[in-house]
Amino acid sequence: GYPLTLIGGPCVIESEYFTLKMAEKIRQICDRLGISFVFKSSFDKANRTSLDSFRGHSLEAGLEILQLVKDRIGVPTLTDIHESYQAATVAEVVDVLQIPAFLCRQTDLLLAAAATGRAINVKKGQFLAPWDMKHVISKLEAGGTKRILLTERGTSFGYNSLVVDFRSLPQLRSFNYPVVFDATHSVQLPGGQGSKSGGQRQFIPYLARAAAAVGIDALFMEIHANPDLAPSDGPNMIPLVNLEHILKQILCVRAGLEVASQPEFNAKN
Amino acid sequence: GYPLTLIGGPCVIESEYFTLKMAEKIRQICDRLGISFVFKSSFDKANRTSLDSFRGHSLEAGLEILQLVKDRIGVPTLTDIHESYQAATVAEVVDVLQIPAFLCRQTDLLLAAAATGRAINVKKGQFLAPWDMKHVISKLEAGGTKRILLTERGTSFGYNSLVVDFRSLPQLRSFNYPVVFDATHSVQLPGGQGSKSGGQRQFIPYLARAAAAVGIDALFMEIHANPDLAPSDGPNMIPLVNLEHILKQILCVRAGLEVASQPEFNAKN
Amino acid sequence: GYPLTLIGGPCVIESEYFTLKMAEKIRQICDRLGISFVFKSSFDKANRTSLDSFRGHSLEAGLEILQLVKDRIGVPTLTDIHESYQAATVAEVVDVLQIPAFLCRQTDLLLAAAATGRAINVKKGQFLAPWDMKHVISKLEAGGTKRILLTERGTSFGYNSLVVDFRSLPQLRSFNYPVVFDATHSVQLPGGQGSKSGGQRQFIPYLARAAAAVGIDALFMEIHANPDLAPSDGPNMIPLVNLEHILKQILCVRAGLEVASQPEFNAKN
Amino acid sequence: GYPLTLIGGPCVIESEYFTLKMAEKIRQICDRLGISFVFKSSFDKANRTSLDSFRGHSLEAGLEILQLVKDRIGVPTLTDIHESYQAATVAEVVDVLQIPAFLCRQTDLLLAAAATGRAINVKKGQFLAPWDMKHVISKLEAGGTKRILLTERGTSFGYNSLVVDFRSLPQLRSFNYPVVFDATHSVQLPGGQGSKSGGQRQFIPYLARAAAAVGIDALFMEIHANPDLAPSDGPNMIPLVNLEHILKQILCVRAGLEVASQPEFNAKN
Repeated sequence: GYPLTLIGGPCVIESEYFTLKMAEKIRQICDRLGISFVFKSSFDKANRTSLDSFRGHSLEAGLEILQLVKDRIGVPTLTDIHESYQAATVAEVVDVLQIPAFLCRQTDLLLAAAATGRAINVKKGQFLAPWDMKHVISKLEAGGTKRILLTERGTSFGYNSLVVDFRSLPQLRSFNYPVVFDATHSVQLPGGQGSKSGGQRQFIPYLARAAAAVGIDALFMEIHANPDLAPSDGPNMIPLVNLEHILKQILCVRAGLEVASQPEFNAKN
Repeated sequence: GYPLTLIGGPCVIESEYFTLKMAEKIRQICDRLGISFVFKSSFDKANRTSLDSFRGHSLEAGLEILQLVKDRIGVPTLTDIHESYQAATVAEVVDVLQIPAFLCRQTDLLLAAAATGRAINVKKGQFLAPWDMKHVISKLEAGGTKRILLTERGTSFGYNSLVVDFRSLPQLRSFNYPVVFDATHSVQLPGGQGSKSGGQRQFIPYLARAAAAVGIDALFMEIHANPDLAPSDGPNMIPLVNLEHILKQILCVRAGLEVASQPEFNAKN
Repeated sequence: GYPLTLIGGPCVIESEYFTLKMAEKIRQICDRLGISFVFKSSFDKANRTSLDSFRGHSLEAGLEILQLVKDRIGVPTLTDIHESYQAATVAEVVDVLQIPAFLCRQTDLLLAAAATGRAINVKKGQFLAPWDMKHVISKLEAGGTKRILLTERGTSFGYNSLVVDFRSLPQLRSFNYPVVFDATHSVQLPGGQGSKSGGQRQFIPYLARAAAAVGIDALFMEIHANPDLAPSDGPNMIPLVNLEHILKQILCVRAGLEVASQPEFNAKN
Repeated sequence: GYPLTLIGGPCVIESEYFTLKMAEKIRQICDRLGISFVFKSSFDKANRTSLDSFRGHSLEAGLEILQLVKDRIGVPTLTDIHESYQAATVAEVVDVLQIPAFLCRQTDLLLAAAATGRAINVKKGQFLAPWDMKHVISKLEAGGTKRILLTERGTSFGYNSLVVDFRSLPQLRSFNYPVVFDATHSVQLPGGQGSKSGGQRQFIPYLARAAAAVGIDALFMEIHANPDLAPSDGPNMIPLVNLEHILKQILCVRAGLEVASQPEFNAKN
């Protein structure tokens, strides 16, 4: 089978030292487990619930730190963009441009991202059916790219709540692009803590395992040395100390699934 | 009681002649009925379902036509913006800047709109609880404006469907800003027609009357001389020929409600 | 226009004295306003959230009290049944048999109710689309009755929450049976208070007015002299003291709607 | 680890010959795979969408066939009951009484089932949050039983659609009763085919694997030699010919999960 990829890192770029340290620690775990690793962190949280929340560095300062992650830790990087003017600048540094879920239908943003030639990870909007991602994909393809990843991160379910419909993974897969499951945003409780989003960190391993059993190419998780002190998305990041155990569970589920798909497996029937 | 305002017009700016004609016709109806009128039309449909859909004019060409609407028809205008760089340019012409529902949490866009000093109509995201609009409002207020309108346009309800929760109108009202009900987007079936959104035009009068009975300051409706030939949102626009009748129904419901809120009404108990 | 009917009363039959007093008070208000009145109260709350909740009287004791309501207050009565064996006994006393929303697809219960010849008010399940009520109606019609009322009482919306989709009222109307809006159960928060359902009493007048503006034949409301002390459904009953005011609002909205449907109204165009 | 249980069989009891044959075939597969097997079939489909649908045998005729399944095939049986009077009679034959999802809050039905002393499998209502099952459990426990199984079978998601929230499995597990995942009803499209419910059979293996990866005690699946000719629930039953392959996938996922929970697994960190 193909190897698993982890897209992970702290939600938002904090200090240079902390960001490099996180990238290094996660890389070491992935290396031990034979998992490909793409470092994710946001330079700017442009759609925080509240204005008082920490938004992160400027574009330039954030990109400088991501360049250091590439140079010193030797891993590819991913970050999200929010307006079309950011695409070209970000693409100079970052390997994967991410389109946030709320913005997955913004044509100009998709076209600007496509024009960079970088890989694009587009998150399915919380308001979108899996089959409607075909139009998002068409826009990107019309923009000239086939380097597309599709991420499931939960669907609106009443107020202040999301639900993951795991039927979406095979549906997204049918578009013939790699499918990513975002295990940490899927347990968000949007707006659920008053001025910021809450989260249900305890359900992350369950949903990650379910996704692995359904079939994914990459797992997306926000990871932090100390989520309870994190400036953003703390309630739904996983503590670094738990990362290896969760990843091993995922690998075990995938190994089981691989056995089940061997020709010998069916011959034994 | 305070007078009703209609925010209305064709979804997207088509030809100069057609746009002016629509503005004139709607204005005549509103004048007859004593309704304030703000002309709405989009220069660009930046988040169409599909790339093949008509997107409209360029920003400049669209604004020129909206300027003509102001000059020749004598009505204020509203249009929507999608990236922060558009705010200042659009504000030179347009009286009300509109923030699309998908973008209602984009901090930079809200701040850019607020900085123009123009009134801002922000649509509640399909993924947002009414009480979470308080953070959207805080961002606009922090940006220096108190000229805010809040629009209900339906909430995600399963896939390819919206539902209007009329409890949201009094909840939005509690923020002490005018409340708008968007009767035509509320009957959209997002993505419901394959490559474009479907709509249930037949329910518009029902939902508009319900909103009037709950209590609104303005009614938002997309209106077209021939919706079935319209380049965008045809299935959920109302035909111009039906406008006067729908508005009269709304006025009748409001008149009834006004009787019910008179002191004499309660004295007669 | 046809007159409005109120289906109302305390959620559950309490003492004989209290029940008769409530029926009398509500009748006086309806008489003053020219509203038809059907007294509703349950002999048994068979699907309470928790077993510790008050369930009411036995079937026999409950029916005795409802018989007194008919004899002494002179109003027709409605109560709900939960198993098919109850239908015939209840029908000896009660004028309208009600099928609870959770049970609206139970064929035996529907057929037993139909066989009594009494009018049947069936509530649309919280899990059912309006158009799927056609099968419920077919079962009742196959059971030999055409005396059917259809009640909207909200639809599941995430967890512990309901939303009223007002598009359902014209859809239910299209089956050519009277349409009822249950304004008090529609604001329930199912299971929302731990061991019992919560409610949002403050939204009842808004939703009732919306329903009147959309168009209904009857309004269903649970009413109590002191909801906060009621043994069941307190959070979503309206206080008796507010009943007249709410009903007058409804009548004003209906009067407005009636003006709007006069031929003269359209002639004035 | 504990062995997996399969609760399975054709949705509704058809002929004696067919029912015995199905029980025998499924038993053989389960024996080969080391899976415990409980045969499920309904004597009566009391809540079919439409009256014209096949409802099955009478109670007595159905029970006779289930008795034969026990005697001749040697497997325990499960069937569902719809009114409280059926509980004692059914319990004379059947090993596990099942409470349908729509009826999971009907107190009398729960108490009658509990009084039989038989194990009870209660399906979580499509309208119920996982945590609200605690009240259902309390009713059963108050009725004197601790032999309870809890089944997840999807939650209302807009109209004519269900979604499985896999967070519910660990939440149900926290009540300390065995947790069952119903993989075939979870892919129903309620009312989705006009006069009967549709289904998405193609998603059954995905959801079953996801459930196994999250953690379940038993898998519930309706199975038929020829689902497309079945009198009930055809679109969401799995063909007998696919059963062994799906079960093997589940066992592989469980084996992977078991590795992940070994102490050695963590020591290797």
